[in-house]
Parts: sequence; C-alpha cells; structure tokens
Amino acid sequence: MTEATRPVVTAFEWVPPFARGLVRDLRVRWALEEIGRPYDVELLNARAPRPDEYLARQPFDQVPSFRDGDLDIFETGAMLLYLGEKDERLLPADTKARWEAIAWLFSALNSVEPVIVRIVSYDIFHKDKPWAPDAREASVGLCRQKLKRVNDALAGKDWLAGQFSIADIAMVTVLNNLRHTDLVAEYPALAEYHARGTARPAYQRALEAQMADFVEEPA
Amino acid sequence: MTEATRPVVTAFEWVPPFARGLVRDLRVRWALEEIGRPYDVELLNARAPRPDEYLARQPFDQVPSFRDGDLDIFETGAMLLYLGEKDERLLPADTKARWEAIAWLFSALNSVEPVIVRIVSYDIFHKDKPWAPDAREASVGLCRQKLKRVNDALAGKDWLAGQFSIADIAMVTVLNNLRHTDLVAEYPALAEYHARGTARPAYQRALEAQMADFVEEPA
Repeated sequence: MTEATRPVVTAFEWVPPFARGLVRDLRVRWALEEIGRPYDVELLNARAPRPDEYLARQPFDQVPSFRDGDLDIFETGAMLLYLGEKDERLLPADTKARWEAIAWLFSALNSVEPVIVRIVSYDIFHKDKPWAPDAREASVGLCRQKLKRVNDALAGKDWLAGQFSIADIAMVTVLNNLRHTDLVAEYPALAEYHARGTARPAYQRALEAQMADFVEEPA
Repeated sequence: MTEATRPVVTAFEWVPPFARGLVRDLRVRWALEEIGRPYDVELLNARAPRPDEYLARQPFDQVPSFRDGDLDIFETGAMLLYLGEKDERLLPADTKARWEAIAWLFSALNSVEPVIVRIVSYDIFHKDKPWAPDAREASVGLCRQKLKRVNDALAGKDWLAGQFSIADIAMVTVLNNLRHTDLVAEYPALAEYHARGTARPAYQRALEAQMADFVEEPA
C-alpha cells in the first residue's frame, strides 16, 4: 500500500431525492477532496441485496465502505480517522488538539447524530403515522439541547478543534440531515459554522461528485 | 504526563436503579481494569447543574469525562481509543486488526447504540405515553436487523476484531442497555458474546466499582 494507491469508496447509484447529498460516502469524498487525493467510486444498487462478499467489507450492508490498497475499512468515523492519521490538514498532530478533534468526531456520531436521526425518522420515514407528531415532540427537546451544546462550544472558534479537522467533516454532514427543518437556524453560531463548512471548495466538489454519480432513473 | 499518573474518571454519585450498571463511566473503568491501571473517580451530582468549568471538560455536561495528566478527553469512544493506543491488550498494533477494532468501535457507537437507545427510550422514558408502543414497533425491526448483523459477524470469532479489544468494551456495554428485553437472547452468537464479555474479571471489577460509588440515598 502506497500513497499512490487510489482508494475506493462505495456509493449508491441511485437514492430517492430526499437522500441525495445525505448519503454518507459524502464524508469520505470530502476528506479526500480536502487533501487532493484522487479516488475511485464503486457504485452499488441500493434496492437489491449486495453480494455476500460485500458483508465482509461492510458488515451492516451499507455504504460507504473504503479500501486503500489491501486494507478495508467500514464506518465513516473509522475512515475519517484513518485519513486524518495520514494528513495533518485533517487531524492535528499536537496531542491536545488531536484528542479534541477525535472527541468531537465521536460526539458528532454518538451524541448528535442519533438525536437528529430520530427527528428525520419521524419527519420522513414515519411522516404518515398517527403517532409520529407526538413522538417527534417528545424527542425534539433533546435534539435542541445537543444543538445548543455544540453551538455554545463553538464560541470564538471557527472549527470544533480550533483548526479544521475530521470532526468538522462529521459534524457538518450530520447537521445536513436537518436540512428539511429550521432547527439549525435556531442557533446562530451553529448555523454560521454549518454554512462555513458547506462553503469549503472541497465540500462542494464532494457533493457534486456524489450527485453526479446518481443515475437518472432506477435501473 | 507519565504512566505513573492516576487518570481521573467522572461518574454520578447517584442514578435511579434502572440506570445502575449502564452509566457510561463503566466503559472506561473496564478498559482501565483490563490493563490494571489504577484510577481515581470524581463523583458528580446527576440532579444538579454541574459547574460551568465542567463544560470545558465535557461539552454535553454528561459523564464520564476523563483526565490523564494535563489531557482532558470527552466521549467514551475517544477515551477507549486513547487507552487502546497505549496498550495492545486493548487495541492490536497490527494494521488490519487495528482498523477492524476501530471500525467495530465506531459501529458499536454509531450503528448499534442509536437503535438500542430508541428502544430504551420507548420502554423506559416514555413507557406511559399512548404513542410509545406504536413507535417501538416501528423501531424494533431496525434494532433486530443491527443485532443480527453483529451476531452474523461473530461467526467463528470470540471477539469482534479477533482478539479482545476496545470494540468489545463498547459493544458489550451498548448491549447492556437491552437488559430489560429478550432481544439479545434472540441471537445465540450475540448472546454468548455478551455473556463472554460480562464474565471477564475486569468487567466484574468495573461494574462493582461503579455500583459501590453510588450513595444509598440522593443527597
């Protein structure tokens, strides 16, 4: 495995419009764009079972999986950490800054994303269920609490760990899942942070690449 | 910062019975017990706001936070990774095994725990709400799907990454949250794995230490 290897990211060849721009291969594409590392995409059919072989690469049968030379990695958190360890533009080498970035990476995925996914679930996947409004109402307070905590932690900082890092790639893409709501806009520092992240040229290139890979019609 | 430093873990001095044995400081205590590293506990009041100073250590105002010398770390995933990087008994040094363990660490926290926390939420926090049974029914299928994926990935293996690692500390303690259900028991390899994890002497010592730190009556 050398730096000359082109890593491979798996992605879906089609997803419904509500999911476009939210599929998690965006995170890995963004990290690779930040460091200018070319990559290949292996497109999978989201509406058919993947071959059994794929489970060895991604035990939950999801995208993305990531391959660099002879190393396969699943979970976007692990992929971001792997890329971060190779490049200080993604993860600072200084001990304190490194662990601050890693802690925020885990926060995005374990403290913030789960409460956001619940809101998405009620608003989109279960929107026609009679119980969904009550379930949403019971969850949105916790979601707001987490958003406020991140908002407050951003005071005086452009990025979660001081300099831009994999933590921001995770947090900004996690926040994307609320694009159908005004929840992020309720927290000014958080909204500015989200806008700052999505304005990065590397983010824009990654998003365009994900969108360009979707076929027009389901195969 | 030297290995002679006693790390400090924050924990709650009292939680309701349903939460005892589930508070996340258990994960860090377990990792420290596996490597025989003594630690100090700083007990916090769960029912009163923590001092503002605590937010600098744990931006979500939760436990645990972790201090090793002059380094503060939040998020149990980051704490486990930090301890793993210092000791091969917690995280193998071999590249493939290391990334397999790290991927499973993220899986426990991002692919499995969120669906389990939803079940806990409906069963415990919202158990008296009229909408909770329907919301649970709509979520339990996804929970079972994730449990089955972990079950299947354990075929022929005692531990997620081959040897015992921080991934198992995370996954076993995540599964603990379903102790009020029979969901884990539906998957034999998973149930055996969970029993194997909780039978480890280091787990038992960590659990006893968490339980011993709770005061009898709320202060």
